[in-house]
Amino acid sequence: MCQLLGMNCNVPTDICFSFEGFSQRGGGTDEHRDGWGIAFFEGKGCRNFVDILPATHSPVAHLVKEYPIKSLNVIAHIRKATVGKIRLENTHPFVRELWGHYWIFAHNGDLKDFIPPLLTDFQPVGETDSEQAFCLLLQELKDRHPGGMPTLPALHRTLCATAAKIAAYGSFNFILSNGKHLFAHGSTQLSYIVRRHPFGQAHLVDKDITVDFREVTTERDQVAVIATAPLTDNESWTLIPPGTLVVFQNGLPLISNSGR
Amino acid sequence: MCQLLGMNCNVPTDICFSFEGFSQRGGGTDEHRDGWGIAFFEGKGCRNFVDILPATHSPVAHLVKEYPIKSLNVIAHIRKATVGKIRLENTHPFVRELWGHYWIFAHNGDLKDFIPPLLTDFQPVGETDSEQAFCLLLQELKDRHPGGMPTLPALHRTLCATAAKIAAYGSFNFILSNGKHLFAHGSTQLSYIVRRHPFGQAHLVDKDITVDFREVTTERDQVAVIATAPLTDNESWTLIPPGTLVVFQNGLPLISNSGR
Repeated sequence: MCQLLGMNCNVPTDICFSFEGFSQRGGGTDEHRDGWGIAFFEGKGCRNFVDILPATHSPVAHLVKEYPIKSLNVIAHIRKATVGKIRLENTHPFVRELWGHYWIFAHNGDLKDFIPPLLTDFQPVGETDSEQAFCLLLQELKDRHPGGMPTLPALHRTLCATAAKIAAYGSFNFILSNGKHLFAHGSTQLSYIVRRHPFGQAHLVDKDITVDFREVTTERDQVAVIATAPLTDNESWTLIPPGTLVVFQNGLPLISNSGR
Repeated sequence: MCQLLGMNCNVPTDICFSFEGFSQRGGGTDEHRDGWGIAFFEGKGCRNFVDILPATHSPVAHLVKEYPIKSLNVIAHIRKATVGKIRLENTHPFVRELWGHYWIFAHNGDLKDFIPPLLTDFQPVGETDSEQAFCLLLQELKDRHPGGMPTLPALHRTLCATAAKIAAYGSFNFILSNGKHLFAHGSTQLSYIVRRHPFGQAHLVDKDITVDFREVTTERDQVAVIATAPLTDNESWTLIPPGTLVVFQNGLPLISNSGR
C-alpha cells in the first residue's frame, strides 16, 4: 500500500510543511520506501519529480523540501511496491495530456485482476494497476466528451461512474488534478482538512514541527490538504466516505456525490 | 533561439560534465535566460526537470549538476523565448506517451505561420510552435502506424517525412527520444561527437574544466553527445547537415537520410 498527499489552494502556496511530515513516512516513520513522487501545477505547466530512492534519502526530496515551489494544485505519493517492480516507470504521480491540459494522478490501494478494456489513446508505460486505472479514467473522459473539456458537473459524473467501476476490483483511493480542480476519491482511507481564516497552529504527526499559519497567510487564503492519514495531530480532519469523489476548487470542497 | 543538448549511450552514463558547460549558456556565457529543462530516461520511465529560472541560477539545475543521474538517453534545452511567454508550460523538453512509451522532445528554431492540421490525440498545452511541431510528429506516427511501434526504418521514414514538412516553415533543429533511440534533426545548426575507446581528455568551451574520460570509462563505453554548438574546444564535432535526421543507438549514429 502507498500513501497519498494532495493540496488545492486559492493562491499559490508551497507544500513544504505538509511534505516535511509526509516524506517521513517514506522510510522514516513508516515503511513506504519504494520510491516517491510529487507533481506541481504552475499555471497550465507542471513539474513532476519522481525518484526510486526512499523519500527520506532522496536528494530530489531534499530539493523539494528546501525549494518552496508555489502551486495551486499538488499531488504527492510515497510507494510501497505491491504490483510492479521498484522502477521509475512504476512511480506515481503519472502525467498525461488530454484536451490540451496535463492531468496528474496518484493512487493508493490494490486492484485485483483488473484488466481494463483495450486502451488505445492512453497506454500504460509501467506495470502498475494504478497506471492502468489512470489510463481508463482518461479514456472514458475522452470517449464520453469528444468535444473537449466538459462542464465540471459532467466531468464529475463521468469520473464518478468510472471510479465506481474500477473500485469494484479493490481499493481505489486516488487524487487527480487537471490544474484547475483537484478530485479526491475515497475508497478505504483518505481524509482532508481545509485551512482558512482564522488560522491557527498545526503540529505534525511524523516529526516534532509546529507551524503557526497566522504568520504566513492572509485572511483570504484557503488551502485544502488531502492525505491518506492525517498529517497533523491537533486539527480535525474529515474522512472522505467510501465511494465519494470530492472536487476541490480554490481550496474548498465544491461538490461530491453521496457516498455509496 | 534556444540551445539543445542530447546524449545517447550504450551504458547508463551521467551528463554532469556536458551539462556543466551547457548550463553556462543559460544566463552565463550566453543569453538563454528564459527557462531550461532536462529529461532523463531511466528504463521506460523518465524524469523531466523544468524551470523558468535561468539555468545558471536555478536550484533545480544545481541539483542536476550535483546528482549524477545515469541514463541511456537525455535531452536538455535552454530557452530564449521567441514564441510564447516565460512560463513552465512553454519550457522544453515536452513529454507525451505513445504506444506505451514516453517520448521526449526539444526544439531549437523558429517556425513562421506554422498552424498544423487539427490535432486530436496530442494537443499542445502551452503556446510554442515547438510543442505544436512535437504534437504533429506524434500524430503522424500514430496515424501512419496504427498497429503500434513500427520497425526503426519505418519510424525513421515517417519522422523524416514529417520533419521535412515542418521544416518548410522555418528552422527545425530538434532532438527526440523514445527511450531506446535518439533522433537528432539538423536544420541550421546541430553537431555531435561520439566518444569511445581510446578515450582522451575534453575541455569545455564555456567553463575552464577538463575531464579525462580514461579515468571514468571502460573500453566498451560508447557515448554520443549532440549539441547546438560544440561543448568542447579540443575535440572534433560533426555537423548534422540540414534536412538530415540521424538516429543514435547504443552511443553510435546508426542510420540517417541523405541531406537535402
